[in-house]
Amino acid sequence: MNEVREHMLNTVADMSGEPTGAYNIRVNGKSEGRASTKNIQIESREDGKGINIYVKPGTKNEFAHIPVVIDNSGLVDMVYNDFYIGDNCDIQIVAGCGIHNDGTHLTQHDGIHTFHVGKNSKVKYVEKHYGEGGGSGENVLNPVTIIHLDEGSNLEMESVQIEGVNSTKRVTEATIADDASLTIKEIIMTSGTQSATTDFTVDLNGENSSVALSSRSVAKDNSKQYFYSVINGNNACTGHSECDAIIMDNAMVKAVPDVTANHVDASLIHEAAIGKIAGAQINKLLTLGMTEEEAEQEIVNGFLR
Amino acid sequence: MNEVREHMLNTVADMSGEPTGAYNIRVNGKSEGRASTKNIQIESREDGKGINIYVKPGTKNEFAHIPVVIDNSGLVDMVYNDFYIGDNCDIQIVAGCGIHNDGTHLTQHDGIHTFHVGKNSKVKYVEKHYGEGGGSGENVLNPVTIIHLDEGSNLEMESVQIEGVNSTKRVTEATIADDASLTIKEIIMTSGTQSATTDFTVDLNGENSSVALSSRSVAKDNSKQYFYSVINGNNACTGHSECDAIIMDNAMVKAVPDVTANHVDASLIHEAAIGKIAGAQINKLLTLGMTEEEAEQEIVNGFLR
Repeated sequence: MNEVREHMLNTVADMSGEPTGAYNIRVNGKSEGRASTKNIQIESREDGKGINIYVKPGTKNEFAHIPVVIDNSGLVDMVYNDFYIGDNCDIQIVAGCGIHNDGTHLTQHDGIHTFHVGKNSKVKYVEKHYGEGGGSGENVLNPVTIIHLDEGSNLEMESVQIEGVNSTKRVTEATIADDASLTIKEIIMTSGTQSATTDFTVDLNGENSSVALSSRSVAKDNSKQYFYSVINGNNACTGHSECDAIIMDNAMVKAVPDVTANHVDASLIHEAAIGKIAGAQINKLLTLGMTEEEAEQEIVNGFLR
Repeated sequence: MNEVREHMLNTVADMSGEPTGAYNIRVNGKSEGRASTKNIQIESREDGKGINIYVKPGTKNEFAHIPVVIDNSGLVDMVYNDFYIGDNCDIQIVAGCGIHNDGTHLTQHDGIHTFHVGKNSKVKYVEKHYGEGGGSGENVLNPVTIIHLDEGSNLEMESVQIEGVNSTKRVTEATIADDASLTIKEIIMTSGTQSATTDFTVDLNGENSSVALSSRSVAKDNSKQYFYSVINGNNACTGHSECDAIIMDNAMVKAVPDVTANHVDASLIHEAAIGKIAGAQINKLLTLGMTEEEAEQEIVNGFLR
């Protein structure tokens, strides 16, 4: 690993040196390091287009890291990662993708992650997306996450995109069985002429199923953000979707939730708020001696923390 | 006027006997009574497809009633009513449509109302929609409301549909200039196999323009409700959209707000909540001696008041 790649692995997957637990590190479209453990088995797919990750029933307190790094300008990479998580597990999965683009070519990664989460299992899934590099080529990241939650299971997803991604379309689809729950926290910041689209679709099929979606975003400069979230309440269930966006400069933010109650015991709530930083907040920080830029930065950092 | 028609005029337009002020009463597709006043002139359109209503600048505290009644089963009626309201007015307009259908035929009224509201004018617009009759023919009402608000003007719209309408598609479009504001309050109840669609599109084009949309609805039995509201913040403006729905029995409710901030000083908020009547509310009324049905009815009435 060279310094650039190490920096990116640290940024997108909090990795320094070899990770503990199971891992697969994909660099420029190829596996450059892999380890399985007794309970978490990582195998190449037969079609060669990615990996399958098998987690034995009852696996607790284990990690899997599956980061992706690209520093080959012009590469367009697509990968399928399928997780088969047994019953009664409690594990954490760290994905994430970093692109270092020093060239003039559009460089792209599309990661399609499918989670089959067994009964009463608990999964924390963290993914970070990040771009950097001195080239003029665009960085494009299109993560797709497909989640199937069996009875009594729970998945908590944290998705963060802070900088350097010119264009992203983030699609997440979930089906949720009886007594299962999904929590998604998304943080996005865009600047320049970047564009980011988020598209959630959640089917609350199970009795006593639930979902809580929360998105916090900051749109700066001339960037554009689109937030779509579809929640279908098909049984006795609760759904909550919340989108808070700070708009700055000449940016544009669109929020389109879509909640449907198909069952008398479905309870669905959506909230969305788009606005600029409040003047009073800025003024308070100005009196503490900050410049206006510093004050804005401080408020944005706090909002996205 | 026979008793049936009088009852419907009273229900949809609070009219008993001849109204004060300007009016046009449309029965089964034809004008059956009309009066203009010094300040409010009602004229047939040249194309014969409806009326134009001219309100002189500075007109204050005057009314216009333009109700529609249909008791001819099988009639499909479409009418264009265009309002040209001068500057500095303060008036109230009452529309509304009632269908009495004793036959087997689908009976339909599509009223397309366009409002040109002059500078600093204030308009209250009330429309009620209602169906009745012992026949098996369906009652269909598709009101379209197009609103252009000039600088500093204000329109407050109250739209109510309580019963007897098998199918409705209610489209409202508005453009709002500097310092102008729009308030819309919608109340809908559906039952049986009825379906109701509400579709708002509001362009906040003016500096310091604002809109507040609020929808309260109850969906009973196997009925279906669809709520769409698009708010585009194209200038320094505030927009608020709020949709509260009570779902009962096997009903379905869908809410799809769509808020877009195209300007850094656009502040947009959406809230939607769909759920059944809270058990605690019912229980409280049961202890007061009501039956469960009476308790539900009481709560629904309060919610829609």
